[in-house]
Amino acid sequence: MNFRMTIYILGLLLAFEGAFMAVPTLTAAVYHEPELMLFAVTALLCLIAGFVITRFKPKNKTLFARDGFVIVALSWIVLSLIGALPFYISGCIPRFVDALFETVSGFTTTGASILHTLEGMPKCMLMWRSFTHWVGGMGVLVFIMALLPIAGGQNMYLMKAESPGPSVSKLVPRVRKTAMLLYVIYFVMTLFEIGFLLVGGMPAFDAVNLSFATAGTGGFSCNPDGMPYSPFCINVITVFMILFGVNFSCYFLFLQRRFREGFTEELRLYLGIILFAIVTITLDVRHLPMFSGTGEALMHSSFTVGSLITTTGFATVDFNLFPEYSRTLLVILMFIGACAGSTGGGIKVSRLIIFLKNMHNELRIMTHPRQVKTLKMDKHPIEQDIIRSVNVYFACYILIYLVSMLVLSFDQLDLTTNFTATVATLDNIGPGLNLVGPTSNYDVFSTTSKFMLIFDMLAGRLELFPLVLLISPVTWKK
Amino acid sequence: MNFRMTIYILGLLLAFEGAFMAVPTLTAAVYHEPELMLFAVTALLCLIAGFVITRFKPKNKTLFARDGFVIVALSWIVLSLIGALPFYISGCIPRFVDALFETVSGFTTTGASILHTLEGMPKCMLMWRSFTHWVGGMGVLVFIMALLPIAGGQNMYLMKAESPGPSVSKLVPRVRKTAMLLYVIYFVMTLFEIGFLLVGGMPAFDAVNLSFATAGTGGFSCNPDGMPYSPFCINVITVFMILFGVNFSCYFLFLQRRFREGFTEELRLYLGIILFAIVTITLDVRHLPMFSGTGEALMHSSFTVGSLITTTGFATVDFNLFPEYSRTLLVILMFIGACAGSTGGGIKVSRLIIFLKNMHNELRIMTHPRQVKTLKMDKHPIEQDIIRSVNVYFACYILIYLVSMLVLSFDQLDLTTNFTATVATLDNIGPGLNLVGPTSNYDVFSTTSKFMLIFDMLAGRLELFPLVLLISPVTWKK
Repeated sequence: MNFRMTIYILGLLLAFEGAFMAVPTLTAAVYHEPELMLFAVTALLCLIAGFVITRFKPKNKTLFARDGFVIVALSWIVLSLIGALPFYISGCIPRFVDALFETVSGFTTTGASILHTLEGMPKCMLMWRSFTHWVGGMGVLVFIMALLPIAGGQNMYLMKAESPGPSVSKLVPRVRKTAMLLYVIYFVMTLFEIGFLLVGGMPAFDAVNLSFATAGTGGFSCNPDGMPYSPFCINVITVFMILFGVNFSCYFLFLQRRFREGFTEELRLYLGIILFAIVTITLDVRHLPMFSGTGEALMHSSFTVGSLITTTGFATVDFNLFPEYSRTLLVILMFIGACAGSTGGGIKVSRLIIFLKNMHNELRIMTHPRQVKTLKMDKHPIEQDIIRSVNVYFACYILIYLVSMLVLSFDQLDLTTNFTATVATLDNIGPGLNLVGPTSNYDVFSTTSKFMLIFDMLAGRLELFPLVLLISPVTWKK
Repeated sequence: MNFRMTIYILGLLLAFEGAFMAVPTLTAAVYHEPELMLFAVTALLCLIAGFVITRFKPKNKTLFARDGFVIVALSWIVLSLIGALPFYISGCIPRFVDALFETVSGFTTTGASILHTLEGMPKCMLMWRSFTHWVGGMGVLVFIMALLPIAGGQNMYLMKAESPGPSVSKLVPRVRKTAMLLYVIYFVMTLFEIGFLLVGGMPAFDAVNLSFATAGTGGFSCNPDGMPYSPFCINVITVFMILFGVNFSCYFLFLQRRFREGFTEELRLYLGIILFAIVTITLDVRHLPMFSGTGEALMHSSFTVGSLITTTGFATVDFNLFPEYSRTLLVILMFIGACAGSTGGGIKVSRLIIFLKNMHNELRIMTHPRQVKTLKMDKHPIEQDIIRSVNVYFACYILIYLVSMLVLSFDQLDLTTNFTATVATLDNIGPGLNLVGPTSNYDVFSTTSKFMLIFDMLAGRLELFPLVLLISPVTWKK
C-alpha cells in the first residue's frame, strides 16, 4: 500500500469538499438563513485541513490496483463523514447515524431518507442534500482528476474503481481529458434540464434541486409536498432520468457524429426494456382509481419506470399500490439498473448482457462441445477477465444481499420490506416496497440496520469491490 | 440426436413405471380398496407398452452429452404424465393439471401439494404419492441403470444429467456398479428408518410412507393430522432427513473405513450450517407461546432446519409464525440445500463452496494480480469447467427465478408468497411462507402459474440444464 499517496488524495478530497460547500453557503446567503455561518466555517476548515495535508507531496506516486480500491473506499467514507456534519451540528437531523445515513444516501445517489417530512428544513440543507447527488453521480475522484493531475498517468485505477459499470472505456487516450469530457457533458445536460424545468414554470429553487437529483440519478426531493408540478415538468424529468441512465460514452460518440457506434447493444437493450416496462405497466395499472385515464396512467408509469430502472427513485404516485405484476416488474427493474458509465446504479444492463451471453455460450458448449466461439459485444470480443469479474460481481452481490437480509431481519419487519430495502440501497434506488415504499422512510430500522444499509449504499455505488476489498483480509495479506 | 435410443429408453422407463405401481397395487390389496383394479390395469398397460417398444433395439447405442440431457428431461416428463393418471382417473384429484402438479411434486421430491386435506384419500393413493418420492430421490434412470446394461459404458451422461450436484464421482470404475451401490445404500438406510419408527411405536403404514418421503427428501405427509407422533419418532425423522442430505459417496467411503476422506469439506460445512441454524433459531423462538420450553423449541427447530436445508419440507410447527430472523434464515437454508450426490435439492453446499472459493480467489487476483493459484476442494484441484458450469448454473437459476416470479405475479398474491413459492418449487422443498406456508397449499395459484411451478420443480430436480436445454433453440440447432 502507498499510504502517503492515500493521505495526499484524502487531503485533496477534503479541500474539494470544502469547495463544494460553497453551494449551500451561497444558498443560505440568498435566503438569509442562519445556517450560513455553519456552512462557511465547515467549508473553511475543510479547505485549510486539505491545504495543510496536501503540502506533504509524496515522492512515490505509483498506484496499483489495490491502492485504487482502498483509496476510493476511504475517500467515500471520509466524504460522507464530513458531509454529515452540517445536518448534525445544525440539529436538522439530531442523531449522527441518521445524518450519516442521509449523507451517504446523497453521495451514493440512493435517495433513501430517514426524514419523516421536509417541512421546516432550511433551503441550504435541501440544496446540500441535492448537491451531494450531483457530486456523487459522476464521482468525486473523477471530478478531482478532471481538474488536477493526481498521479501521473496512473490514475486509471482510481477512475475504474469509482465509475459505474463492468468496463470503463477511456473516451480519449488521456485519463484526465476523459474525466473532463465526462464532466462537461454532465454539466451541460444538467443546465439543459434546469432550463426546461424553468420553461415549464417550476420555481428556480426546485428546478435546480431536482436537476441535481436527476443528474446524479439520486432521488432526494426538495418539496415537502412531493412532486406537485405540471405534466410538462413531470415528462421533462422522465426524459432526463432516462437520459442520465445512458452510458456517457454514447453521448461522446454522438457528438462526434459516430451514431452507429454510439447506438450500442447496451443502449438498445436499455431502451427496449424501458419501452416494454412502460407499455405493460400502463396496461396493468390503467384501471386503478388513482388514475383518471390511460393518458395519466402512461405518464406516471413512464415516470416510475424511468425512476426505478435508472435507480433515481423519485415517485409521483405510490407504486406500492400497483398490482402485483407491476410491483414485481418494478423490483426486477431495480435489480437491472441503468447503463454502465452512466450515473445510475444497479447491476447494469451491460453486465446483464455479458451474463446472458456467457450463459448462452456455456449452454451451447454443453450440447456442442467441439464448437468454440468467443463472446462479442458490439462486434468487439469480450475479454475473459471481464467475464470472470462479472461472475465474481454476482457472487459478491448475492453474499452482501444475504448478510444484509439477515441483519435487517432482527428488526422484526416483514420479508418484502427487508428484501426491497436491501435492493433499494444496494442498487442505490431509494424507495422499496411496503414499509420502505415511496410514501414511507427508512427511520423504521434500528441503528445496526442503518449501518448495514449505509454499507450497502456505499458498496452499491462503488460497484462492490472497493468496499468488499477494504474489509477483506485478502487485501491486507502480504 | 439419437432418436431411436431415446424411444428405447422411454420404453424401458414405461416398463419400470409399471413395475413401480406394484407398490400401490399391493397396498390397495392389503386394505381392500376399490382402486386395486385401477392400479393393476395401469401397471399392466405400462408393462405391455414398455415391452413392445423395447423389442425394437437400436443398433447405434452411442449417446452424447446432448442426448443425455434430452433423454433425462423427456423421461421425467413421461414419468410424471403416466404417474398422474391414477390420481386423475380415480377422481381423487379431479383436474388433470392438479394431478400432474401433485405427481411432479412427488417425483421431483418437492412435496408441494394442491390438496386441501388428506381426509378420505385412499391409502393406496397416499402410498403412491410417497413412493414417487422414493423413486425420484435417487433417480429413476439411475435405478434402471443399476439393473440393466443400457448403453454399453456410455451411460455416464445419463447419470450425470439425473444426479444432483455439480460433480458426480463414480464410486467404482463401472457406472452400473456405482448405480447399484447407491441404491443398496439408499435401500438399507430406508429400511433402518422404517425400523426405528416402528420401534418408536408408529403405525406400519405411516412408518413406511414417511420413510419413503424422508429418503427421497420429499415431504409428502400421509396423515391428515400432520405429524402427531412421539418426540422419539420426530427426532428419528430429523436425524434421517439430515442423513439423506449427505453425499452418498461419503457413506461409501465410510463403509470402506476411509473416514478421513469421507469427512469432506462439503460434509463439514453442511453439518456446520445445520448446527449454526439450529442453535440460533432455537434461541430466537424459545419464548414463543407455541413451545412449552427450550427443550421443545430445540426439537422443533432441529426438525425444521433439517427439513428445510435438505429440502424435505415436513413441518411439525407452523414456521411461518417464527420471528423474522428465523424466517429469513430458513429461506436462506432453502436456497442452500443439501449436499451434492444426496437425494436433497437446492443449490447444494458444494456449489456454494466452489462459488465462495472462486469469489475469494478472484478478489485475491484483483489485489495481487501476479499470484496465480488453483482452487482446491478436499485437496484436489477444481477443474475450470466445473467452475464455469457453477457460474452458468447460477445464471440459469436467476433467470428461471425471475421469469417464474413474473408469471406468478399475475395471480395478484403477495411478493413473499410468490418469492417463496418459487424457491420452494425450484429447490424442491415444498412449503414456503405466507400463502404457501406449511399449513396452506398450492391450490391458490392459477392454472398458468401451476404449469410454471411444474416446470420449476422439474428444472430444480434435474439441476436446471436438462429442462433448459430441452426448450433452448441452442440444442436443436445443427
